[in-house]
Amino acid sequence: MTEISSIGEFALIKQLTEHIKLKNPSSIQGVGDDAAVIDAGDKQILTTTDLLLEGIHFDLMYVPLKHLGYKAAVVNFSDIYAMNGKPTQLLVSIGISNRFSVEQVDEIYAGIYLACEKYGVDVVGGDTSASVTGLTLSLTCIGEADKDKVTLRSGAKPNDLICVSGDLGAAYMGLQLLERENTIFKSQKDADFQPDFASKEYILERQLKPEARKDIIELLAKNKLQPTAMMDVSDGLSSELMHICKASGVGCRVYEDKIPIDYQTASMAEEFNMNLVTAALNGGEDYELLFTVPLEWHDKIKDLEGIHEIGYITSPDLGAALVTRDGQEITLKAQGWVAFDKK
Amino acid sequence: MTEISSIGEFALIKQLTEHIKLKNPSSIQGVGDDAAVIDAGDKQILTTTDLLLEGIHFDLMYVPLKHLGYKAAVVNFSDIYAMNGKPTQLLVSIGISNRFSVEQVDEIYAGIYLACEKYGVDVVGGDTSASVTGLTLSLTCIGEADKDKVTLRSGAKPNDLICVSGDLGAAYMGLQLLERENTIFKSQKDADFQPDFASKEYILERQLKPEARKDIIELLAKNKLQPTAMMDVSDGLSSELMHICKASGVGCRVYEDKIPIDYQTASMAEEFNMNLVTAALNGGEDYELLFTVPLEWHDKIKDLEGIHEIGYITSPDLGAALVTRDGQEITLKAQGWVAFDKK
Repeated sequence: MTEISSIGEFALIKQLTEHIKLKNPSSIQGVGDDAAVIDAGDKQILTTTDLLLEGIHFDLMYVPLKHLGYKAAVVNFSDIYAMNGKPTQLLVSIGISNRFSVEQVDEIYAGIYLACEKYGVDVVGGDTSASVTGLTLSLTCIGEADKDKVTLRSGAKPNDLICVSGDLGAAYMGLQLLERENTIFKSQKDADFQPDFASKEYILERQLKPEARKDIIELLAKNKLQPTAMMDVSDGLSSELMHICKASGVGCRVYEDKIPIDYQTASMAEEFNMNLVTAALNGGEDYELLFTVPLEWHDKIKDLEGIHEIGYITSPDLGAALVTRDGQEITLKAQGWVAFDKK
Repeated sequence: MTEISSIGEFALIKQLTEHIKLKNPSSIQGVGDDAAVIDAGDKQILTTTDLLLEGIHFDLMYVPLKHLGYKAAVVNFSDIYAMNGKPTQLLVSIGISNRFSVEQVDEIYAGIYLACEKYGVDVVGGDTSASVTGLTLSLTCIGEADKDKVTLRSGAKPNDLICVSGDLGAAYMGLQLLERENTIFKSQKDADFQPDFASKEYILERQLKPEARKDIIELLAKNKLQPTAMMDVSDGLSSELMHICKASGVGCRVYEDKIPIDYQTASMAEEFNMNLVTAALNGGEDYELLFTVPLEWHDKIKDLEGIHEIGYITSPDLGAALVTRDGQEITLKAQGWVAFDKK
């Protein structure tokens, strides 16, 4: 018997899905992108799903239920935007253990509905179940896009510029902070203990209540800029760059000094004595958009607020690497989750 | 705080969803049918999702992993057929704990792929996660139907005939048998204990490896018969009849002596000293199709193999009732799941 920890997430997914041959003419894009693409005449239907399990994806000690619902919805919307689509419908499945009250379940749904309201998405179905284990949330989002607008991971070409929206590493540093305060809280006998979150609001919000970059998709559309490849940053920039390189059959160079990082993220990393670039490259849960555009769009892109050029696509033989401040090239590594690892 | 067990499944779902107002023009049918209906031009897209949790929906003591995967897929397909649609794509999310090996996960997927092969469905995506609790499966199926073919629960009219495919109660009696043998097995110290499944193959298969009634949908289409209302029988005939009556604003009369029951089901109920009609009405997991057709189709329906007329639709003031063999009327009750109840 092969332990799952011995092969890891990506190898497991590969083993489970590599033999798939799509047979329905409407199955345009299957496993391997942010969302699946289904042909439906003029439009294409996009669909993506996320499973959130207590103890793996969230700790109810420090995640308010309403935030949990909000985030669960938003991370699905983010996958649809990452296809250059518009999320339209959501299916919500929930497994609830006896220790939850109706009011608590209402809180989770209030967060989901708040996100749906903000992003213009309809809840159209789902499944509600008792659970004898932990809280389970499984959300599936349906979206749509015009046939010629869908943007896969596989369209990046040598010399394309690599762009990323917003800033990176903040959600990860927010998680480190929450975990530290939670550990302190547990070890204290003082019932009045209050976590210290002053001037850390941004990184906390990035962890607890992330937003999907609908605004960036709209900004690109307004400027008639359609990326050649796109995905959202959920597992960390490093891992996502490798996904785009692999899917597109290209290499890349990304510059350390161009990776956008917020002041609070940097300050928190210093407080924790952590390597800031590692946090930005591997932290994950940023839900920013990573995309490539033709080189000649540089002049248009550089004036767009919230979009940063961080590198360029190369031929495949050059591999994927980070160029450090002192000009060294460090080969990028994909992490994926490591939750199967034994501790 | 309100305990969920104090209000039950249906009231909880109602509370969580009754305020929803669909806003996207493509959202045709939301919560409250077997699948959601999304407009996509010529075709309509159908989508449904099911969450399966260890300890609630399956017990790995007596459910082989391959069967679990097969059933998880088929119950989703059944929801699409129940809309008079054709399942085309499947998203598979799985939460796996450390105690599973790669080979065991492969077994689950082998069952899913076998079902997909049989029903012509493509796996196009999903999510794979570690789990610190039990095994979690969340499957979402996408299907399609011509705009004028989608069949909701809400179209039944007074005097319509009520029809059901196959036979009922078998999966429930299969579960009773599995649970009995499992209890005996656990109490035995004899390592050679073999469960007694002789001449019980049919009810076991109905529980462990159910099929969706693709054949019935094709039979109806071939005979140009489009039901006025339809759903699949997953929670039990009684509960499903009430769903159709509520959604259509009608009542119904169903005859005890017309409910189709297999010999093995009847024999097992006798062995367990259980009320056979209760098993057939409330057992659930039959995945048969329950549908209504205009009265004048009686002559066409009666010659179709595998379809049984079991009663008729009435005006709403007459309510929903079972007519017993001796002519008494018993008001139908919806059960839903009772897993939130404390034991």
